[in-house]
Amino acid sequence: MQKSSRGRFFEHFSIGETLHHPGSRTIGAADATLYLALFGGRFPLQLSAAAAQSCGLAGAPIDELLLFHIVFGKTVADVSFNAVANLGYADCRWLRPVFPGDTIAAESQVIGLRSNETGKTGIVYVRTTGRNQQGEAVIEFVRWVMVAKADPAHPAPIAVVPELPARVDPARLLVPAGLDLSGWDHRLTGQKLCWEDYAVGERIDHIEGVTIAESEHRLATRLFQNNARAHFDAVLQRASRFGRPLVYGGHIISLARALSFNGLGNAVLLAAINAGRHVAPAFPGDTVYCWSEVVDMAKLPGRADLGALRLLLVAVKDAAGSAFPRAGGDAAVLLELDVWVLMPRRGRPA
Amino acid sequence: MQKSSRGRFFEHFSIGETLHHPGSRTIGAADATLYLALFGGRFPLQLSAAAAQSCGLAGAPIDELLLFHIVFGKTVADVSFNAVANLGYADCRWLRPVFPGDTIAAESQVIGLRSNETGKTGIVYVRTTGRNQQGEAVIEFVRWVMVAKADPAHPAPIAVVPELPARVDPARLLVPAGLDLSGWDHRLTGQKLCWEDYAVGERIDHIEGVTIAESEHRLATRLFQNNARAHFDAVLQRASRFGRPLVYGGHIISLARALSFNGLGNAVLLAAINAGRHVAPAFPGDTVYCWSEVVDMAKLPGRADLGALRLLLVAVKDAAGSAFPRAGGDAAVLLELDVWVLMPRRGRPA
Amino acid sequence: MQKSSRGRFFEHFSIGETLHHPGSRTIGAADATLYLALFGGRFPLQLSAAAAQSCGLAGAPIDELLLFHIVFGKTVADVSFNAVANLGYADCRWLRPVFPGDTIAAESQVIGLRSNETGKTGIVYVRTTGRNQQGEAVIEFVRWVMVAKADPAHPAPIAVVPELPARVDPARLLVPAGLDLSGWDHRLTGQKLCWEDYAVGERIDHIEGVTIAESEHRLATRLFQNNARAHFDAVLQRASRFGRPLVYGGHIISLARALSFNGLGNAVLLAAINAGRHVAPAFPGDTVYCWSEVVDMAKLPGRADLGALRLLLVAVKDAAGSAFPRAGGDAAVLLELDVWVLMPRRGRPA
Repeated sequence: MQKSSRGRFFEHFSIGETLHHPGSRTIGAADATLYLALFGGRFPLQLSAAAAQSCGLAGAPIDELLLFHIVFGKTVADVSFNAVANLGYADCRWLRPVFPGDTIAAESQVIGLRSNETGKTGIVYVRTTGRNQQGEAVIEFVRWVMVAKADPAHPAPIAVVPELPARVDPARLLVPAGLDLSGWDHRLTGQKLCWEDYAVGERIDHIEGVTIAESEHRLATRLFQNNARAHFDAVLQRASRFGRPLVYGGHIISLARALSFNGLGNAVLLAAINAGRHVAPAFPGDTVYCWSEVVDMAKLPGRADLGALRLLLVAVKDAAGSAFPRAGGDAAVLLELDVWVLMPRRGRPA
Repeated sequence: MQKSSRGRFFEHFSIGETLHHPGSRTIGAADATLYLALFGGRFPLQLSAAAAQSCGLAGAPIDELLLFHIVFGKTVADVSFNAVANLGYADCRWLRPVFPGDTIAAESQVIGLRSNETGKTGIVYVRTTGRNQQGEAVIEFVRWVMVAKADPAHPAPIAVVPELPARVDPARLLVPAGLDLSGWDHRLTGQKLCWEDYAVGERIDHIEGVTIAESEHRLATRLFQNNARAHFDAVLQRASRFGRPLVYGGHIISLARALSFNGLGNAVLLAAINAGRHVAPAFPGDTVYCWSEVVDMAKLPGRADLGALRLLLVAVKDAAGSAFPRAGGDAAVLLELDVWVLMPRRGRPA
Repeated sequence: MQKSSRGRFFEHFSIGETLHHPGSRTIGAADATLYLALFGGRFPLQLSAAAAQSCGLAGAPIDELLLFHIVFGKTVADVSFNAVANLGYADCRWLRPVFPGDTIAAESQVIGLRSNETGKTGIVYVRTTGRNQQGEAVIEFVRWVMVAKADPAHPAPIAVVPELPARVDPARLLVPAGLDLSGWDHRLTGQKLCWEDYAVGERIDHIEGVTIAESEHRLATRLFQNNARAHFDAVLQRASRFGRPLVYGGHIISLARALSFNGLGNAVLLAAINAGRHVAPAFPGDTVYCWSEVVDMAKLPGRADLGALRLLLVAVKDAAGSAFPRAGGDAAVLLELDVWVLMPRRGRPA
């Protein structure tokens, strides 16, 4: 009897099935601290109990991306253990803040399947939900991955490709209960900019760069309990087209968000990921820079204290963000991530 | 007056003496989190308060091997600062679970001494006990190490070699107070296998591999307060037969245990180490795989909810576990560890 | 409108201005744990709640240097983002212990400015104060850094160079409220030496060495929220005279303090930094050793339980401390740090 698992291959997924990802995990203050040491965040609500309380929260919530990665990590053994590539994200919303001590579990529903022309791989679409110990949904997102087939001769299923929104409608964005940015203290970030100070089309170079060290991306990826082999097994990866372990794509997302503090420091919370795409793989030794473009702005119903800014975050490798490179150009773009962030508005809106 | 210490050499040990290892250390939830980031464990009781409580525990206990390493680390300055090799372990039992907030101290008794023929080194056997802040023993184990002599001319002591059990008698295994696996929920691990599903002689390839990064083994070793110079000082190690720092052997033990989740996910607790041997040293860059053999099975008196499985865990370097290599063969076996684990039994035994 | 910041250059500082460094940060038990994993400290009060309570404290305080680095880190974006070199420290005192859960903020006053002859850089002196959530000062120190000018043609300000004490007067040293070392238990450190056992002029080789790994110094530097680009951006640093990222100087301070345990284990608390100087930069791969000289000894008013020892800690690169090298000699001295430490006195002073 086979006791260990090589994970699911493309032909093992069925449309509509629900995957109850094994295990729950209690997220503690230490997760937040280690996340800080790995990514160097400076956004204040997630780092200072005093700052969070001054904005109406009970304490510092777990960073939104740390939660995302932990929920994502729970799906790996079932969804992407045999993934060839992590293709994209859509319709991700944070539904309820998570605080140290909460225990998080995750489940995914298979919402799309499409065999590739080569017959060797297929694309699996899942909608994943993370829940706290009360069973309340705290995050949901769709992602799709290219997964190897165990048997290339296995017949292709009828293709089902879900229709995904190009963006999360701002009316669907959720603000944590109790959050009130009406008395926002700019000393929390040292940046005086409010929602009204940004304009659609504006581009921001976030200036700073971070070189990825080998241990860091693996500590992070394990912290998220993401056991995808491509990140950990150098022997296995020698036989791959990359020749060496890959950095978990979510690592780049977190670096980009942390770098964006310089220029977007008052974008205090992520509310949604509209779309996301890993344009190229990253490796230890790469230096990551980031720039952003303001894509849209939205007031939120009933909220005079804060507004939503839709941003395209672009992470680039070994090249400054000051040239604002996009995928398809010469520069090695790693990531394009389209998000909604929440930002304080002026007391008297302009 | 000499203020600093070069540690104890072989001739400084006496049969029967007790070494009260300096200092106690409060183990917190952060130790568990950092341990997760270093080793990537997925066993649920140690990671989820909700999972632990559903099995009758007050909360998530500190991982058994994290406790082992912290107690081991406390002994290094007194026992193995000048160790040439960490030879073996025996008769290790976990006596009582440790929870975040507990403060741990350690003491060792010298139970064996034998000079080597070369006269340059000798073997020291100690029985180490870790205690919590109430003075209750939480773990005990025997280990033996080869220690350098300060003065090769020092006369050899009368050899005393302790008789050690080949295995811990299963009647001596202790189950944490309150633990009840009778309602075991397989969704905690995603693995449906119970104690009855394993058979003596069965071998399990744990499939996944992990490449050791330089920082990781040192972060771990410092977390355990193990200050053996061979792990930290590259200049000193250039003069050694290895030419570079060694990975702490316990690092391999923890990697092997974490890898064994894939196939032994319901082996929720370690109860004993019967024997252990570091077959070869490991270095940063090595990729570690693991396989297991079921050596024995035991019911425990008065327990219908769980049984004990005796396993030989074999960690191998740069070679898959699917060939089930053993020490002495061609493959670079790093570790052979003989343990008792606890696993839920079926409601109605098969 | 420029949204991101390239930091302050020399001409942006004015004598007397106060910089309110953005953001506060809650320091948790996890910071202490990660700090342990990064530096391997063994001083007991900071690691064991039981040890701290046996000496009259409410619990284990946050390590003095961890606090120093976190407060220092808060100043980087405002003071030293464009620093060419971190020149020195003086008049640093710990004013009140910090415990897990405290939230720390920082402010700095510009107390000195002096343009360099080249006109390309200038020296900025700041006095920095860290405060807890009650607004109480917990640490203060002076540091001075060489900062680039944005415009070399900018006229030099009138030079103001603050008079700094060569040492902190021992009458100004503060002992944490409640601390009582009169019943000091030598088993907490395994070292029997008291304040009376040391003599002015005595030199101590701390024996052990630690090789710096790339990830470690960056995890530490991010934990401190120090975002100075020279530590993180390998592309930027290729154009510098060093060709690669530098290790944050404070990393060497913490390594030296941790190494000094072997010989100064009963120096349980740092009370002041009299002066400090980074003699040479450090890089990943360097192996750090440390030796100390006893420079002065002081009884403290009204305290029979403890005394102060003034030490010069010297960190050296790739060369044992047993030769007691000093800056200016052949050996690669990295750091000279002049500190006051607190140490138990004998019940009946010798």
